[in-house]
Amino acid sequence: MVLNNAYGHGGDIYHNDVELDFSANVNPLGTPAEIIRAVAEAAGSLSAYPDPYCGKLREKLSKVHGVDMDDIVCGNGAADLIFQFAAALRPGKTLLPVPSFSEYEAALAAAGCEAEYYYLSRENGFALTEDVIERITPETELLMLCSPNNPTGKSVDAGLLGRLLARCRKTGTWLFLDECFLELTDSPAVKSLIPELVINDRVFILRAFTKLYGMAGARLGYAICQNRDFLLKMCASVQPWNVSSLAQAAGEAALDCGEFAAKSLRLISEEKKYLLRELEKLGIAVLPGEANFLMLQGVPGLYERLLGKKILIRSCANYRGLDEGDCRIAVKTHGENERLIAALEEIIHA
Amino acid sequence: MVLNNAYGHGGDIYHNDVELDFSANVNPLGTPAEIIRAVAEAAGSLSAYPDPYCGKLREKLSKVHGVDMDDIVCGNGAADLIFQFAAALRPGKTLLPVPSFSEYEAALAAAGCEAEYYYLSRENGFALTEDVIERITPETELLMLCSPNNPTGKSVDAGLLGRLLARCRKTGTWLFLDECFLELTDSPAVKSLIPELVINDRVFILRAFTKLYGMAGARLGYAICQNRDFLLKMCASVQPWNVSSLAQAAGEAALDCGEFAAKSLRLISEEKKYLLRELEKLGIAVLPGEANFLMLQGVPGLYERLLGKKILIRSCANYRGLDEGDCRIAVKTHGENERLIAALEEIIHA
Repeated sequence: MVLNNAYGHGGDIYHNDVELDFSANVNPLGTPAEIIRAVAEAAGSLSAYPDPYCGKLREKLSKVHGVDMDDIVCGNGAADLIFQFAAALRPGKTLLPVPSFSEYEAALAAAGCEAEYYYLSRENGFALTEDVIERITPETELLMLCSPNNPTGKSVDAGLLGRLLARCRKTGTWLFLDECFLELTDSPAVKSLIPELVINDRVFILRAFTKLYGMAGARLGYAICQNRDFLLKMCASVQPWNVSSLAQAAGEAALDCGEFAAKSLRLISEEKKYLLRELEKLGIAVLPGEANFLMLQGVPGLYERLLGKKILIRSCANYRGLDEGDCRIAVKTHGENERLIAALEEIIHA
Repeated sequence: MVLNNAYGHGGDIYHNDVELDFSANVNPLGTPAEIIRAVAEAAGSLSAYPDPYCGKLREKLSKVHGVDMDDIVCGNGAADLIFQFAAALRPGKTLLPVPSFSEYEAALAAAGCEAEYYYLSRENGFALTEDVIERITPETELLMLCSPNNPTGKSVDAGLLGRLLARCRKTGTWLFLDECFLELTDSPAVKSLIPELVINDRVFILRAFTKLYGMAGARLGYAICQNRDFLLKMCASVQPWNVSSLAQAAGEAALDCGEFAAKSLRLISEEKKYLLRELEKLGIAVLPGEANFLMLQGVPGLYERLLGKKILIRSCANYRGLDEGDCRIAVKTHGENERLIAALEEIIHA
């Protein structure tokens, strides 16, 4: 938890007067009923300590991804695993393309490490480009990537990702790849690196339940990595019971949610088109994000003006490499998106 | 979470065939209905991120303890805060009386620190004695205490605790005091150090919801410390959302549970007397524990023999300073305790 004013993320509906929260990138369909039921049921067994091995959950995940369950670790949200990763690796030279999720930087700092920033260019739509390959040298201990990236929604091109992987193998560089939004993209070009793990013991892939399954409040994420010595070191950096039995129950239920993911993707895809079209009509510059959120550019004051209408969006002013005029909105349900567009119309035409 | 065989605690009902779990020190009355209801209700709002400030919960705790809410941090279980504490302090010379809870040692190791062990003497019932004071020198950066101690159930004498506090002030030594079992003692001599905090900015007091409120599965603990710079450093060592909204809801409900704590204490006190009496009849040496658990001594093989009867107890063989013949049992409800005694009779008279 944070004390005082150190918090700089979306989703803070507790200290703002909010009717509509567009600031957190969570599935617009919310939490599947199966998960709510599973958590309510697990509440009846709260007296027992959680399974420190997350056995059932990891077994299910190992089937989903076709990897050995000992290659999977679960965490108290994906963010927990970012801190565990940094604490266990304590990397020297770390290459970090920005703008990106600020917890990478925070986790590196907590581990006493500093990143070398690679500034993605606005002109390029913040896409990662080939020249990043040259920046990876034998001195580079770690490359941290987020694909699709937060807050730009831009994924790493699959061809480039393969070349980066080859480069990292050659230089002995760890590749940390945050795929937390990968299941929320509608782009068939976006590929997971999980199938590539088998020959790469310095690749660490991060996944979340938070976003797709609308369970940010429960805290559950996982990582896949085939370097068991490293995973053991990571587990030794935290208490044995860091994943609550409620989160484990929620995760197990999530993996049985059948059509929920596909249904969510269809909705997000449709609504993203709607938002892109309407934002364009309003003359607001927007990046063609590949996940369930969109980054708007060059509209200073929008955060405050929408908050005046009890709509919370994510100001991106505190992202390294972004400006006052940048902000991020989640793709929500049609009715909610219409209300946002109506509010934006009022503001733009005021 | 832990991978492979690194786990060495009680409560592992997931990998043992168990009908009765005496291995985890949780309230025999289980989880109050109010908490179960609160968690089930909070499951309906899982889509939102938890309040990173744990605002409502800390406000309630500040009233309970009469301290400013900015002196309180919440964690993902008390164990989470042990790791955060060690990561933020990274102490040099640390004095650690043993046997005690092994996560202190694990957290120090994770922070790259090593403890100097002070072995409590069996002849003395593992009580902390005056000579520990001399061991605290200006070079001692940290003293870690657990009172009542786990697994012995022995608390630090209130007079000695005062002298230790004075000594630590003089030498500039941090005092980490784990009071997680304090609310479960029936001894009026056991005193909290919370009222002493006001003049001691190097005192860190740990508390849990886990044990008293039967909510080990939800993960919730807190710490009180009046050194705000240190608390801010601690919070920076973890993600902002480490306390789930389910745990926060459970904690808020727990603080409204009225008579539950007093009722639990009465039961534990009665049942402890029963167990002590029956164990004595069986000729089993037992320490007069002050909390909701008892340590038995000199009975090798008891763990395995009880597990053969589907009763799980905590073997203390892996506690630093204890032996194969040591084990710990929780004080449970009368019917459960009777079953344990009956099983012990069968084993002893076999």
